[in-house]
Amino acid sequence: MKRPANTNILFITADQLRYDSLGFTGHPLVRTPNIDRLAAGGAFFDKTFVQCAVCAPSRACMYTGRYVHNNRVRFNEVPFGEGERTIADYYSEQGYRAALVGRTHFTPITETYGFEYYAYYDGLPAKDSYSSYPDYLRRCGYSEEDIRYRYWPKELEPLPGQEAYPENLIEAFYPSRIAEEHSDTAFLTDEAIRFMEETGDRPWMLHLSYWKPHLPFIVSAPYHDMYDPADVPMPTLAPGELDRKPPLQKLFREERRGNFLEDEKLLRQVRAVYYGMITQLDDHLGRLFAEMRRLGVSDNTLIVFTSDHGEYLGDHYMVEKELFYEQAIRVPLIVHMPGVVPPGRFDGFVESIDILPTCLEASGISLPPALDGRSLFPLMRGTANDWRSEVYAEWDFQYYRSRRQLGLRPDQCKANMVRDARWKYVHYSDQPDELYDLERDYEEHVNLADHPDCAEVVRDMKDKLLKWRMRSEDKGPEVDLTFATYLRDPWASAERKG
Amino acid sequence: MKRPANTNILFITADQLRYDSLGFTGHPLVRTPNIDRLAAGGAFFDKTFVQCAVCAPSRACMYTGRYVHNNRVRFNEVPFGEGERTIADYYSEQGYRAALVGRTHFTPITETYGFEYYAYYDGLPAKDSYSSYPDYLRRCGYSEEDIRYRYWPKELEPLPGQEAYPENLIEAFYPSRIAEEHSDTAFLTDEAIRFMEETGDRPWMLHLSYWKPHLPFIVSAPYHDMYDPADVPMPTLAPGELDRKPPLQKLFREERRGNFLEDEKLLRQVRAVYYGMITQLDDHLGRLFAEMRRLGVSDNTLIVFTSDHGEYLGDHYMVEKELFYEQAIRVPLIVHMPGVVPPGRFDGFVESIDILPTCLEASGISLPPALDGRSLFPLMRGTANDWRSEVYAEWDFQYYRSRRQLGLRPDQCKANMVRDARWKYVHYSDQPDELYDLERDYEEHVNLADHPDCAEVVRDMKDKLLKWRMRSEDKGPEVDLTFATYLRDPWASAERKG
Repeated sequence: MKRPANTNILFITADQLRYDSLGFTGHPLVRTPNIDRLAAGGAFFDKTFVQCAVCAPSRACMYTGRYVHNNRVRFNEVPFGEGERTIADYYSEQGYRAALVGRTHFTPITETYGFEYYAYYDGLPAKDSYSSYPDYLRRCGYSEEDIRYRYWPKELEPLPGQEAYPENLIEAFYPSRIAEEHSDTAFLTDEAIRFMEETGDRPWMLHLSYWKPHLPFIVSAPYHDMYDPADVPMPTLAPGELDRKPPLQKLFREERRGNFLEDEKLLRQVRAVYYGMITQLDDHLGRLFAEMRRLGVSDNTLIVFTSDHGEYLGDHYMVEKELFYEQAIRVPLIVHMPGVVPPGRFDGFVESIDILPTCLEASGISLPPALDGRSLFPLMRGTANDWRSEVYAEWDFQYYRSRRQLGLRPDQCKANMVRDARWKYVHYSDQPDELYDLERDYEEHVNLADHPDCAEVVRDMKDKLLKWRMRSEDKGPEVDLTFATYLRDPWASAERKG
Repeated sequence: MKRPANTNILFITADQLRYDSLGFTGHPLVRTPNIDRLAAGGAFFDKTFVQCAVCAPSRACMYTGRYVHNNRVRFNEVPFGEGERTIADYYSEQGYRAALVGRTHFTPITETYGFEYYAYYDGLPAKDSYSSYPDYLRRCGYSEEDIRYRYWPKELEPLPGQEAYPENLIEAFYPSRIAEEHSDTAFLTDEAIRFMEETGDRPWMLHLSYWKPHLPFIVSAPYHDMYDPADVPMPTLAPGELDRKPPLQKLFREERRGNFLEDEKLLRQVRAVYYGMITQLDDHLGRLFAEMRRLGVSDNTLIVFTSDHGEYLGDHYMVEKELFYEQAIRVPLIVHMPGVVPPGRFDGFVESIDILPTCLEASGISLPPALDGRSLFPLMRGTANDWRSEVYAEWDFQYYRSRRQLGLRPDQCKANMVRDARWKYVHYSDQPDELYDLERDYEEHVNLADHPDCAEVVRDMKDKLLKWRMRSEDKGPEVDLTFATYLRDPWASAERKG
């Protein structure tokens, strides 16, 4: 085992935090002074994209540094591909205390993927028995009913079959029945601070994995009415937009609550509450960073802040995520460590699989050959002369209702995306393609896949997808050359990417 | 556990047996009366293709019923992807004795992938310590030198660094120093018979995995001079053929002993010995089938006979296999069980991943959802109205010397092939494409990939590759819906392929 380097890793993820909903990324309304300050003092990667706009697959890519088709976490609530190694495995092998505070969305919960589950909390009441948060609420005096129906406002009667949370977004009009200081965002922050205090000088790697600003759209006072619904920016919708897109998307709109959004009042309220959740998160991050200064770990901790995907908030007639629109796949990414990470805004294309190798390089841990991602340090140092010129993402919709409505078999539900500086191309195994010209139509309203002028672009982007899939196949196990006498040309480690 | 069905499975593979080198597939010279009789009494699948023309990857596809990119056995001497289940796992779970007699080419040897290694023998002397064959030879009176240098004729002095076998094919001019009745083909046949005798009425699944007619080109008398080199059919070579193909292939020719083949005498001798090895194998199969009748297991045993890939024998200026030419990827496939398997010749496209589901259906074992292959019974019954119209194969050449000579990184060495009734298209991640019109040029001498008239064919074939890769991604683990309350549309088992 290598001597542990003395750099802690604090890997913070928000859940469903959209790229453009922060102060420093230009939002006209949302206040996020603490995240803005983190970005100003660190490296901000302006073109960061997740590899799947679904919680668990996106996290699995971050944890393994590998694409979905390699780590095989294609859905929520599934186990990792056997043999996969995570950021926690890499760090605990080096003597770090590798812990989780918050959510993962993997199954089984009892398997922790190399992490010490310091404070597990996955959000959904169905998983409360695995979490310490409900007990915390009990100790704070909340009733069992309050805990079970914590995503239902006091003012509403929980509906049968919707115990977890209302399915029509109506919760957005009320404050949470949980006081702000007892909110899950407060609790997870407290737990992260407790972890740092308790761990002391032993090097640590902590994934602080917040559940917010994920729906349900309910937040404690004063955040529930912090933003005036009249002030929120509204989606730019193009009537008939979905007529020119794969049939999947009209169906998917229904699965993603698009029908509720015709009510402008509701949509404005949803957006206002979403922004409130973000400011709540920002306030607690400010508290966390202050505690870290008090504990003296600010200077030797690499902080990574990002999100697992965005939130449509009515764009493209949906709430939630999935598919490949910018609102879903583009996320903020900040890497911060004074003296180690040069501050600045970096424009190179980043995939969230790059987070793991970046952390490992910061800690002086050599990069495992199986990684698909690349360390961001060469990009920061300006020494990356062969940096990538496009990003990739995947999605499998076999478990959604739309699949059956389309009459597709489960194996006909694959979608792959490639996006470069100008074009975004989505290839479905069994749906029509999508092509957007992001220079002229950043809103992705006009599908050009069938436009005769774009035939060559489609061909080139399809070539890129095929090359990507072939090149990035699982690097496979190391070959034991004991009996492979005819394999005289082993993959020399010096040539490995990194 | 299900009640074991009373059908034994005898899965016989030859190694490096080329499709066209059998009597019943039309060879003008080679005598294979026993295999011919098996084909006449069973189902013969005339268009059967392996998923990779390399030993272990091809076997792994047969064992798992899954494509290379799913089972992840891309090279010889590597372990299976973790979590993979093999034909032996499926059968032993049902109470069968699932055993191996012969070779696998997987690593580590100590892991047996669900098999009882009844008599392991991988061919190469480097692995003798894992095998019972060397001890058998000792008991038969052979010296340590005879055993170590068994692929060197007595007449030649073994060369340093070539202890395993001569690298210039010169062994072909001499008989083996091992007597025919002690040959590995005889020994493995004996062991298979012993296994059946010993197992009695308990249902069994046996993979009888011969090493021959794999090189070295040396065989015991009388097979070494059974065929007159003057009589052998010679390759049809097209001078300059390789000039119009990817640069890889000229280099690969050198790796695959192409330079020795300018010596016509040597080439004729190599072919004659290869045919001798095939007739030797056929003679022992005749003995095996007679013993099975004597033991009374002929009527309740499904026999599958195939090969892991072919042998160039000088075609395309090579010996051995790899790449995607018909000589390498097309193999014989016979499925035989009187009363269960209808005799006949079937022309539908078959992939060797179909063998496992065919065996499982014969045994009344339900098909696991993770399989890529399909049972051949619908094809035999004439009820397969959506049968495949093309076959696919993969290859990764990162461990070959040619890779370095081309200056490619290890991840730039992927190749995928699709072949339909007329066209064969090979897409390399980082080499020029290949396209052959098999109707006009079955010899695959003329690469049409850049021909302007074929642009649409190339586009269509490339589309097929991309669709194939997307659709056939690992079916993944079953989703546990306990917490996946939003996944209201599970992949119903009734819809599973099979």
